[in-house]
Amino acid sequence: MRIPYDEVINQLKMTLTAHGCCEEKAGLVAATMADNSLAGVYTHGINRFKRLIANIDSGVIDVNAQAEKTGGLGGYEVYEGKRGLGIWNAVLATKRVLELAKIHGIGCVALRNTNHWLRGGTYTGMIADAGMAGIAFTNTKNNTVAWGTMSGCIGNNPISMAVPGPRGCPNVAVDMAMSQFAWGKLELAKLEGRQLPMEGGHDLDGNPTRDPDKIMESKRIMPTGMWKGSSMSILLDLVAACVSGGNTVHQLSGLGDEQALSQVFLAINYRALNNAGEIEESIQDTLENLLTQTPAKDGMAVRYPGQSSGTVKADNLAHGIPVDERVWEEILAL
Amino acid sequence: MRIPYDEVINQLKMTLTAHGCCEEKAGLVAATMADNSLAGVYTHGINRFKRLIANIDSGVIDVNAQAEKTGGLGGYEVYEGKRGLGIWNAVLATKRVLELAKIHGIGCVALRNTNHWLRGGTYTGMIADAGMAGIAFTNTKNNTVAWGTMSGCIGNNPISMAVPGPRGCPNVAVDMAMSQFAWGKLELAKLEGRQLPMEGGHDLDGNPTRDPDKIMESKRIMPTGMWKGSSMSILLDLVAACVSGGNTVHQLSGLGDEQALSQVFLAINYRALNNAGEIEESIQDTLENLLTQTPAKDGMAVRYPGQSSGTVKADNLAHGIPVDERVWEEILAL
Repeated sequence: MRIPYDEVINQLKMTLTAHGCCEEKAGLVAATMADNSLAGVYTHGINRFKRLIANIDSGVIDVNAQAEKTGGLGGYEVYEGKRGLGIWNAVLATKRVLELAKIHGIGCVALRNTNHWLRGGTYTGMIADAGMAGIAFTNTKNNTVAWGTMSGCIGNNPISMAVPGPRGCPNVAVDMAMSQFAWGKLELAKLEGRQLPMEGGHDLDGNPTRDPDKIMESKRIMPTGMWKGSSMSILLDLVAACVSGGNTVHQLSGLGDEQALSQVFLAINYRALNNAGEIEESIQDTLENLLTQTPAKDGMAVRYPGQSSGTVKADNLAHGIPVDERVWEEILAL
Repeated sequence: MRIPYDEVINQLKMTLTAHGCCEEKAGLVAATMADNSLAGVYTHGINRFKRLIANIDSGVIDVNAQAEKTGGLGGYEVYEGKRGLGIWNAVLATKRVLELAKIHGIGCVALRNTNHWLRGGTYTGMIADAGMAGIAFTNTKNNTVAWGTMSGCIGNNPISMAVPGPRGCPNVAVDMAMSQFAWGKLELAKLEGRQLPMEGGHDLDGNPTRDPDKIMESKRIMPTGMWKGSSMSILLDLVAACVSGGNTVHQLSGLGDEQALSQVFLAINYRALNNAGEIEESIQDTLENLLTQTPAKDGMAVRYPGQSSGTVKADNLAHGIPVDERVWEEILAL
């Protein structure tokens, strides 16, 4: 079924308010989650709303918490997230990092003890929309196999990067977990009764499998690029913990459902020091070169990362956001 | 054969001087390349020396160039690398980014029109040695297949990250290209007459292959994690170009042998705002948890990224650096 964008926002906002959120927070969180689904990132939009509410009800998320600055030096600031709403904290961090980058050329805001931000691309997208280059990463609960072990003891720790698209095109953007398949992609495949397009993890007996159910059961998700994603995951975790003074994956994984995360937001005000027009032209040339390569399969279009978000958004705005009927019924019952 | 560390440095330095480098630059470049081999990164040490000299002789690298600051705002500075020695420029950028991070909490130095830095880990290692978190990335010539095409039109654009190891342990560090196998790994496998441990690219006919020769011929190296590494490569390229005001992969690939690269160096002075002792302890706990997991194969040890560099270094210092005899003879003849 497809639900109009406005109806989605209203429903999510109403539910959030009923579960203790103030108007302002409920509005921002509802709009952000609706926007994620609107942009086609269904795994990190409406599909996760039930879990968000469960986390609010169980006290994992404190809807009344306000993040507090614990220190600052030049362009770098650290905030205690007080286990508040992840989206709320991350938007606050992003707005602040843009202010810092305006003054200091580069800004870095780190959040500790915060909660799931849903989609890193939301925040790097805000940075790119402001004409800067954005990088953001978070740690997660342990959910990915460390290379050289059979143990899912590392996080999938997504990183997102974005730069403004040239001449009104959508931002060039990546938002990727260090597992070959994000947890949300496993959930979506399970929901749709699909196998994964390639082996994405091991079952409880140690056999590689495409079955999302078996991987979610074993929590043995393969790192992306094997040893590469595993190492990168460990570094993203430790850098996030160092820079925020917060938990590592290992530390927060002992706390129950995913919570008390460490996140880093970087904005680089590159137009302050370089020729913005020349850069826009060189991005345009570079993307054009990519888009005019021969596709690997006939009839398949080559796309730059982030390109399709615009068309999906337009379609979902016009025809409503595709939502699994069971998911929507569950939300109505919350 | 194994050559004593000092002998390697002296030989490389002498050769560099003979090809026009001043004493100071020759000394730094020789020591850095010897250190890369000493640390076990053979692909980006002595094995690449012949190519460096060829690039100097052909004018790709201008040994007399001095990088020049083109702009600065707070913690962010941009330098024109003037196609100077890549290692020299990158060390200069790293020293400067440490000064900036000391004052501004975070530092960002971008280099444009610079040359191959050999190993990103050299620079993030310097940052971690100074007690900060380091991130550095570079673009490269087009050498990796873009997802959705059969065309090697993107770079493998390595990124390196490092944080100080706890209590005197080696830094936790990653240095990875966005191809599943770095060009240097293909060269090493070819040199040693080995096939790759997994499919790493396509041959000229479009068939997946483990043969390094065929992949080097087609230049169709697979991105790490397929669509993930491909997207990440594109973003690392565009961010590097935006932040430095320099070339993208597409632009520099038209110039002949790899040259005129864009690079970014970030240092975060996290100890200025957080409790350094607590962070060290939490890194220690987290690594201990990783190292005590059951290995995937009997007799195989679990290691953290960067851990083995210490033991390899000690062994190579004691017994000399392993060098392929042909490679060493070629160097002696330069």
